[in-house]
Amino acid sequence: MPNPTAAMLVIGDEILSGRTRESNMHYLAGELTRIGVDLKEVRVVSDDQDAIVAALNALRGAFDTVFTSGGIGPTHDDITADSVAAAFGVGIDVRADARAVLQAHYDRAGTELNAARLRMARIPDGAALIDNPVSAAPGFSIGNVHVMAGVPSIFQAMVASVLPQVVGGAPVQSRTLRVQRGEGDVAAPLARLAEAYPDLSVGSYPFQTDGAYGTHVVVRGTDAARVEAAMARLATDLGL
Amino acid sequence: MPNPTAAMLVIGDEILSGRTRESNMHYLAGELTRIGVDLKEVRVVSDDQDAIVAALNALRGAFDTVFTSGGIGPTHDDITADSVAAAFGVGIDVRADARAVLQAHYDRAGTELNAARLRMARIPDGAALIDNPVSAAPGFSIGNVHVMAGVPSIFQAMVASVLPQVVGGAPVQSRTLRVQRGEGDVAAPLARLAEAYPDLSVGSYPFQTDGAYGTHVVVRGTDAARVEAAMARLATDLGL
Repeated sequence: MPNPTAAMLVIGDEILSGRTRESNMHYLAGELTRIGVDLKEVRVVSDDQDAIVAALNALRGAFDTVFTSGGIGPTHDDITADSVAAAFGVGIDVRADARAVLQAHYDRAGTELNAARLRMARIPDGAALIDNPVSAAPGFSIGNVHVMAGVPSIFQAMVASVLPQVVGGAPVQSRTLRVQRGEGDVAAPLARLAEAYPDLSVGSYPFQTDGAYGTHVVVRGTDAARVEAAMARLATDLGL
Repeated sequence: MPNPTAAMLVIGDEILSGRTRESNMHYLAGELTRIGVDLKEVRVVSDDQDAIVAALNALRGAFDTVFTSGGIGPTHDDITADSVAAAFGVGIDVRADARAVLQAHYDRAGTELNAARLRMARIPDGAALIDNPVSAAPGFSIGNVHVMAGVPSIFQAMVASVLPQVVGGAPVQSRTLRVQRGEGDVAAPLARLAEAYPDLSVGSYPFQTDGAYGTHVVVRGTDAARVEAAMARLATDLGL
């Protein structure tokens, strides 16, 4: 049985303008691999409601679970929650439970829960809150979509609280062989290996050390015994 | 007149599995901003022909220019060239000019141009080669799509050779104001600013130093005088 699938939607002009280096994708990819969920596609779109709605509806229809990052803060350019509500065709308003979380947080800090901060309590109808242990303002889950903050520390905390609810599959076993030959010299044995083990993924990634070419061969699959067998055959084929 | 638009398509299982951290997007975003091209969307897909074809056709239809990275090496999992040919509905075969480039490179290195390496001379009909000063194997341009390597040093060299052919727009001016207040405290003035300057992009990015919250306000636009005027108004509004 194939593993469950996932997609990620990154929302933010700052990524597309080159101001900010995206870093949540790599983290999420590693976490999903660990629990046996296949991340199949990532999209990055700007702070534009039409773009967000179109991408979200495409991804949530095509994959089992969708994770979003970015655009849930207090400023005018934070339009993710409203865009998600539009994508699902549901209403959105300040919700009592989200407001209570923010009120308690800002009371502790001695800060006013003003109109801007109250925007962070706008939650689409029917969504469940995602805890934010860093700065209180919650994410939310609706349907198969988990909406999370873009700030990496908050994103990671929200992923940690959401992942236990995500149905995983067989964890993927990965083995790497470092070969001191260029990709072009190992391509034929690799192709034979991929053909002999269609249930495994055989990847090859070139590297260069002191002017000499080498290749990392990565074999991945959910059946550890098959992965080991493939690695053994590869070593034999390469005369190692 | 709005600036020309672009999209990027990143191809590779290694990104989606978390094995490799994607780094070309940030580089391309910065280069495009510099020449006044708006990067509007990025997609990351796996080494799967159907996924590549669907994403490429969506992006090349929606944006002025598309840049791809990854999947043009010599191994069985390098299927970008064939997928691009399929997306455009054109044939693909080993081409004499690409073969000559590879032959000269491997002759110099004393390495055999074997069948695997010859795959890198497979070029879709009608495409123009993109020079690869690092490792010879060329990228190519077809229609509004530029197909480039995933290895960052090669990707960057190919971008440098392609960009002079890309029609740019007005370079975007960007000014940043560092404010020692949380986003929630500057949100209202920022919203007023964005409303007063609909031709500019007003972004806000929180940071935290020694437990104190601050905000970077970024104002971007193609008219330097408008950007300066907005920054002046912002400073006044914030009492700075």
